[in-house]
Amino acid sequence: MRPEQARRAFEGERVARLATVTPDGAPHLVPVSFAVRGDTVAIAVDHKPKETTALARLRNIRAEPRVCLLADRYDEDWTRLWWARADGLARVRAEAPAAAGWLAEKYAPYREHPPEGPYIVVEVRRWSGWSAASVPAPPLDG
Amino acid sequence: MRPEQARRAFEGERVARLATVTPDGAPHLVPVSFAVRGDTVAIAVDHKPKETTALARLRNIRAEPRVCLLADRYDEDWTRLWWARADGLARVRAEAPAAAGWLAEKYAPYREHPPEGPYIVVEVRRWSGWSAASVPAPPLDG
Repeated sequence: MRPEQARRAFEGERVARLATVTPDGAPHLVPVSFAVRGDTVAIAVDHKPKETTALARLRNIRAEPRVCLLADRYDEDWTRLWWARADGLARVRAEAPAAAGWLAEKYAPYREHPPEGPYIVVEVRRWSGWSAASVPAPPLDG
Repeated sequence: MRPEQARRAFEGERVARLATVTPDGAPHLVPVSFAVRGDTVAIAVDHKPKETTALARLRNIRAEPRVCLLADRYDEDWTRLWWARADGLARVRAEAPAAAGWLAEKYAPYREHPPEGPYIVVEVRRWSGWSAASVPAPPLDG
């Protein structure tokens, strides 16, 4: 995939995985809901009972801002596989009104219970992707 | 989730994401097909046209064997969300007949075209997971 194809394929997905690096150098993964505007990815740290995990990803980003995000589509027909990846620099913000708005626009649960934050805001430096088919599976309308 | 619940939830999925760390300390992500036996996760590096990516993950593991694997289930009903994670130590093997057999048992494409390797074999040191519901969504039969 070309970078813009990867960006749009990623943007269209409902869930991605956020990889960070722990202070002692190990990889760490969590699934995230997210919203994309241009080359910015916004993620809210939900107010669900998983404080320890939330702290881990935030602590990691504060020590190492480089993050990797991945969206992928699985199918038993492997000619339909594809993935899209965003490599970028993350910052943790206590408040991010724009990001909160993007997330509420995309996800109904955030319209019922607006995210409280904190937020992870990723500035993407590189979009990349791969598709098993010659024509990428994700819709690229418009 | 308790570790054994996380292990079984992970084992039942068809795709996971493999996080490694690059030699210069950044996180790297790819989706992977995989097979689990006990605390071992086997992954084949497919013979598809993505040599650069394949080399990246293998190079990363050779320099830093700690990896993180994640399987997750997304649903628009966020009370059904869950994820399961495996943290472990990976090794790259040119040949792994047992791993190849596990993968062929799980995936039809590998029965038609057996994996050629190399293989990534992960010894899991920690299984963990989270479920939005009090009763985990993944089937835990038997």
